[in-house]
Amino acid sequence: MAVFPALVKAGHEQVCFFHDAATGLRAIVAVHSTALGPGVGGVRIRNYADDNEALTDVLRLSEAMSYKAACAGLACGGAKAVVMGPFPADRRAGMHALAGFVERVGGRYVATEDMGMNESDIALLNDKTRFAVGRALEDGGSGDPSPYTAQGVIVGMRSALKAAGMSGDFAGLKVAVQGCGNVGFGVVERLLARGAQVLVSDIAAQATARAEQLGATVVDNEVILAQPVDVIAPCGIGAILNETSIPKLQCRVVAGAANNQLATAADGQRLSERGIVYAPDFVINAGGLINVSDEIDPAGYDAERVARRVAAIETTLDEIFETAQQNSETTAETAMAMAKSRIAAGR
Amino acid sequence: MAVFPALVKAGHEQVCFFHDAATGLRAIVAVHSTALGPGVGGVRIRNYADDNEALTDVLRLSEAMSYKAACAGLACGGAKAVVMGPFPADRRAGMHALAGFVERVGGRYVATEDMGMNESDIALLNDKTRFAVGRALEDGGSGDPSPYTAQGVIVGMRSALKAAGMSGDFAGLKVAVQGCGNVGFGVVERLLARGAQVLVSDIAAQATARAEQLGATVVDNEVILAQPVDVIAPCGIGAILNETSIPKLQCRVVAGAANNQLATAADGQRLSERGIVYAPDFVINAGGLINVSDEIDPAGYDAERVARRVAAIETTLDEIFETAQQNSETTAETAMAMAKSRIAAGR
Repeated sequence: MAVFPALVKAGHEQVCFFHDAATGLRAIVAVHSTALGPGVGGVRIRNYADDNEALTDVLRLSEAMSYKAACAGLACGGAKAVVMGPFPADRRAGMHALAGFVERVGGRYVATEDMGMNESDIALLNDKTRFAVGRALEDGGSGDPSPYTAQGVIVGMRSALKAAGMSGDFAGLKVAVQGCGNVGFGVVERLLARGAQVLVSDIAAQATARAEQLGATVVDNEVILAQPVDVIAPCGIGAILNETSIPKLQCRVVAGAANNQLATAADGQRLSERGIVYAPDFVINAGGLINVSDEIDPAGYDAERVARRVAAIETTLDEIFETAQQNSETTAETAMAMAKSRIAAGR
Repeated sequence: MAVFPALVKAGHEQVCFFHDAATGLRAIVAVHSTALGPGVGGVRIRNYADDNEALTDVLRLSEAMSYKAACAGLACGGAKAVVMGPFPADRRAGMHALAGFVERVGGRYVATEDMGMNESDIALLNDKTRFAVGRALEDGGSGDPSPYTAQGVIVGMRSALKAAGMSGDFAGLKVAVQGCGNVGFGVVERLLARGAQVLVSDIAAQATARAEQLGATVVDNEVILAQPVDVIAPCGIGAILNETSIPKLQCRVVAGAANNQLATAADGQRLSERGIVYAPDFVINAGGLINVSDEIDPAGYDAERVARRVAAIETTLDEIFETAQQNSETTAETAMAMAKSRIAAGR
């Protein structure tokens, strides 16, 4: 893969390949934009087949973080790190080496959790760098981001319901939640508490048990998207809105927490043509980022500010739905344009 | 080109690709080793065909800088930058963007001149970063490095003469100098001043005029390596010691300033088999680096220290020639082993 053409195309500022001889750790840190602030993004640890696969992933993910942060109104840019798995067996030494890499980016990148990382790993990073956030609550951190992401999905869903001509009231609403991990379950909980009827699925059978106990109805993960409901809330894997699934949808709204829900940009158009209101994923799922990035503030984490910003996902989406309609563009296009214009203004 | 396998193989710490949207500047900074200190290396501006060509160049060059600095006994590591030419037409804006890239490496890289750069460019870099050295003398810098490189070649040549069983006296010595740029001319001047007979050549006919005025004899650049002389001093392009040229050599010593004189490692063996004493290029040509890197010292540039270190090239080569003989290895192998052991000790 040619690096510069990719950087130029998506507007990345830099991408660094790091290697630590002592532990064998290899990682790539991509900084897409620091126009609005330091690039905040997770560290993803994966057994990438090769450099190219890792590079493609980190460039795409870091760019998405810029747009997510910009739409959430944060003073953060977009960045991401990928680690070539398997991670060194000596976790502590490996995390300390990784922290060294983060330090070398000099504050343009602030690391947080992604696949293969947890709060205790962030604590290990913090041994060697202050440019890592997402510590546990008991360590003075922002704690588990999942409830914030789930809360953002609820307020964002309300905006989408109104855009679809509904009341925005959850009582009696039928919602199908695909994926019942920490975020999906948080969405289910909140929906049930508000009187909605909830269908839920997961690729792992046992993952839905706690949702079922609360009153959700479990359906097969393969068929959940085709259920006749008011709302589909994708909270699992990405690319599930595609040319195969979209024609089968029987809903008025798609509003959920999964990343990269649209397989291609054309799928945003497909949803629009079917009259389905789609809440752009990177806008509605920003709650977790809003929470974790609040740790960066020099005055410290502020729970009230986080709550205010998560609540503002609703008004941001109100604006996006209205603008999309006015401009006859897809909601994903509107959200992207909003992000890009905020980033350009920050330069 | 796969990046990580290349980094792992040569032991590089990091390689960063930078892109500045405003000027279109694209550059790669490779840091091979900072075990002994910050990596000092030139910025090379070239119209590379693509990323791969630039990456191959910067990885190779940065590694070589580590070995050069280590053998010179400097508290410096090895690093290098390459800029994808053509350089932005607005030189000032381009250099300021480049300085921004250098800053982002956070002091692990200290930039200096290489192809396509000059002292005024270093001054432009210094507008935005202190991690650039090689300012003009009148700007409080270390000035033109060429005389120091030339002086190092002279003392290194004396070591090589002794290793070849000669007296080390230059009076009456026959030396052929290939390449008559600033360094080559400096070598010619010093040889003539010491009473040597000097043959000189250059690919550019006019380049030899000033050497001829001093008393050197100009010969064709194509045939200079085959002249019957005591010493061949390559001071032009690299890779001139190869399977074609080595059988034609009629000298006892090869000692010159050119980088990468050996086309392959096997050519070191070929010289050894012919009984020709070869002064490893990265040891004998370190004078310029010794001079420019002295600017890094917090207490400032010290001309006496520079002179002492340039003079020490002779004793370093004495040690290399002796060890190579004892270990029945080529002088290039001995020098590389010396560099690697110093770097390993610095970790």
